[in-house]
Amino acid sequence: MSQDIGEVGVPACDLPQAEFGRRVKRLLAVQARERLDAVLILTPVNRYYFTGITASNGVLACERRGETAFYTDFRYLVMARRRLEIMPTKKLWRASDEVAALGALGARWRRVGYEGAIASSRFSALKEALPKVEWVDIGPRIAELRAIKSAAEQRVMRAAVAANDRLFAAVMRTVGPGLSEWEIRQRVRREADRIGQGEAFATIPCIGRNAAECHHEPDGTVLRRGQPLLLDLGVSVDHYCSDMTRTVCFGAPPPLLREIHRIVLEANRKAVRAIRPGRRGDEIDAAARGVIRKAGYGDYFGHGLGHSLGLEIHESPSFAETCKTVLKPGMLLTVEPGIYLPGKLGVRIEDVILVTADGCEVLSSTPRELTLSA
Amino acid sequence: MSQDIGEVGVPACDLPQAEFGRRVKRLLAVQARERLDAVLILTPVNRYYFTGITASNGVLACERRGETAFYTDFRYLVMARRRLEIMPTKKLWRASDEVAALGALGARWRRVGYEGAIASSRFSALKEALPKVEWVDIGPRIAELRAIKSAAEQRVMRAAVAANDRLFAAVMRTVGPGLSEWEIRQRVRREADRIGQGEAFATIPCIGRNAAECHHEPDGTVLRRGQPLLLDLGVSVDHYCSDMTRTVCFGAPPPLLREIHRIVLEANRKAVRAIRPGRRGDEIDAAARGVIRKAGYGDYFGHGLGHSLGLEIHESPSFAETCKTVLKPGMLLTVEPGIYLPGKLGVRIEDVILVTADGCEVLSSTPRELTLSA
Repeated sequence: MSQDIGEVGVPACDLPQAEFGRRVKRLLAVQARERLDAVLILTPVNRYYFTGITASNGVLACERRGETAFYTDFRYLVMARRRLEIMPTKKLWRASDEVAALGALGARWRRVGYEGAIASSRFSALKEALPKVEWVDIGPRIAELRAIKSAAEQRVMRAAVAANDRLFAAVMRTVGPGLSEWEIRQRVRREADRIGQGEAFATIPCIGRNAAECHHEPDGTVLRRGQPLLLDLGVSVDHYCSDMTRTVCFGAPPPLLREIHRIVLEANRKAVRAIRPGRRGDEIDAAARGVIRKAGYGDYFGHGLGHSLGLEIHESPSFAETCKTVLKPGMLLTVEPGIYLPGKLGVRIEDVILVTADGCEVLSSTPRELTLSA
Repeated sequence: MSQDIGEVGVPACDLPQAEFGRRVKRLLAVQARERLDAVLILTPVNRYYFTGITASNGVLACERRGETAFYTDFRYLVMARRRLEIMPTKKLWRASDEVAALGALGARWRRVGYEGAIASSRFSALKEALPKVEWVDIGPRIAELRAIKSAAEQRVMRAAVAANDRLFAAVMRTVGPGLSEWEIRQRVRREADRIGQGEAFATIPCIGRNAAECHHEPDGTVLRRGQPLLLDLGVSVDHYCSDMTRTVCFGAPPPLLREIHRIVLEANRKAVRAIRPGRRGDEIDAAARGVIRKAGYGDYFGHGLGHSLGLEIHESPSFAETCKTVLKPGMLLTVEPGIYLPGKLGVRIEDVILVTADGCEVLSSTPRELTLSA
C-alpha cells in the first residue's frame, strides 16, 4: 500500500548517545565556571539538545553535589527510559508536579542556572518554591554552545540543506502559472514530508505584490507569468532545520524586478565574500546593506541579513546591525538580503553558509537565477 | 496544473473585524476592573485573538489615558495596515526595539497588565525599562475570555471538528497493514492539507506496544493485522484546532485489546454523560477515572481526562484532578480517557464536546469501534 511514498522521510536513528554525553559535559563545565549548585533545563529545545528526548514535559537537573538526571511524567517515561543511556530517568507523576518536585530536590541549592526563555509565570513559581536561590540565566551560555555545530551536527545540517535543494527542485517541477499560494504551499509540504520530516517552518510563498510583505501568509492569489514568486522554505531532517529563499519568475520578468533581483543577488554575494572567522556579525550585515543602500533601496531592506539555525530555525548569533559576536569556525548562518517595495514586489535570496577555518562554505546549491530554464 | 488539489484547504476569510472589536472591548473591561494604566499583549496567540494579525512580532498596547494601538516591525507593517480596521497600526523599526519603545511609551504607567506566558528574560527587560510599574499577570483573565467560545468561534470549531471526522475517514480509506507509523503520519499530513490548513499538532500514530507510550514519536514500525493502531490527529481550520483519537484494529483484535477498548469507551461515555454547566472539571475527570479504577487499571491512566482547545490545542480549563473550574455554556473541551500497558498496548478514545445550556454536545461524529467494517 506504500507504492507512492518511499521510506526516505522516516526519521533516522538519533545521534549517538556519545554526542549527547559530550553536550552534557560542556553544560557541566558551564555549571562549574558559573559556580552553580544546580542547572535546570526546562525548555523543549534544550531538553532535546542535551538528552535527545523529544517531549513536551521533562526536566534535566544537574546537581553539583548530586547526580545529573532526567525527570519526566507518565506520558514520556517509557520512551525516555528506552532511549536515554547517559543518565537515569526519574518519574514526575504529573507535569504539574514539576515545581513541587524541584522545590523538594533543591532544598540546599543557593545558586541555580536556568533558561531565560521559560515563561515568566513558571519562573515566578520556581522562585517561590526555592526562595533562597540566586538565579542565573544561562540561556546565553547554552546559545554559545549550540552556535558551534559539532562534526555530527554539521553532517546532519549538510544533509538538511541538501534536502532543501532537492525540495526546491521537486517543487519547481510541478509549480507554475495558474497555481495559488496555498496550493504551492501544499506542494511544498507534501514534498517536505517525502524528502525529510516535513517543513522546518511554515513555508512562505508570495506572489507579485504579496512578496512586499516579507512574511506574507499564503492565500488564494494565483501566479501569473511575469510575476515574481518568492518562496522561502525549509525542510526538517532528524530534528535539524534548513532554510532557503529563491525569487523566480515564469515568463519574461519586468525591468524593475530584474533590476531589484540583480541588486539583492549582489548583496548576497558581497556578504558571502566577507564572511570569515574573526569578523563580527554586524560587519557582514553592513557588507550586504551597503550594496542595497548604494543602489538607493536602503529603506526597503528592513530586517537583519541572516540568522543562525540548527535545532531551531532562528538561533544566535545573527548577521544584524546590533550583533557584535565574533564569527568562529563551525557556526552556521543564513545570508538573506531582500528588497521589498510595497504594492509592487519583493525579492529575497537566502543561502545557508558554514563558517570554516579560513572563510565560509555556501551549503545551499540551488541556482539563484530569476528566470528558470525550463 | 491543480488537477489533484482542490481549493478546499485555502484559508477562508478571517473572522469579521467586529469579532475582534468585541474581544478588545472585553479586554478593556478587564483593564478597567483591574485598574490598569496599560495592557500589553505580547504573545503570538493572544495577538491573533485580539487583532486577527498573524505575526511573530507585534505589541497590542491599550492605554487607559491614551489609545489602543498595534505596533509591529517592518516585516509585518504592510500586512497589518491592510487588515486591521479596528485600531491604528504603528511602526517599530526592528523587533529588538520593542523594549525601548515601550519604555518611552509608558513613562507615566504605574500598573500594567502583561501575560505570564512571555519569556522571563523578556519580562526582566520590560521591568528594567519601566522600573516604576507594578506588573499584573492577566494571563488567567485572558484564558477565561478565550474559554467561552463566541457564536463565530463555535461555527469555526464545528467546521474544524467536522473536518477532522472527514480527515480520519479519508486516512482510513488508504491506511492498513503494511504501512509504517511514519507513512501513516505522512498520509494524515497530506489529507490535512487538502481538507484544512494542515495538522493542528504533530499527528501521533502508534502501532502495537508503541501505543503504550501515549505521546510516541512515529518511527518505521509497520502495522500488522490484529495490532492496535492508536491515531491521535487534528486539523487546523482558519486558525482553530480540532483534536480526536481513535484506536482501531485491522483483523481480529486479541481479547486483552478488546477488553481495554471496552473499558476506555465506557469511561469516555460516562464522562460525557456527566458534563453540564455547574459541574467542575475535576468531577468530570473523576467520572471517567472511576470507571478505569474500578476495572483495575487506575495506575495505567496517568494523564488528565481532557483539555480545552481553540486557537491552541491545549487551553484551559481542563478535565483534570486539579481543575476546580466550573463549566459554563460555550466551553469546548476534549474527553480522552486512555489505558497504557507498557510493553503491550495502549488505547485512547478522544472526542471534542461543547458545553451547552443543559448538558453537552459531542461534536466528533467518527465511530468509536475498535474494528473497522471494511
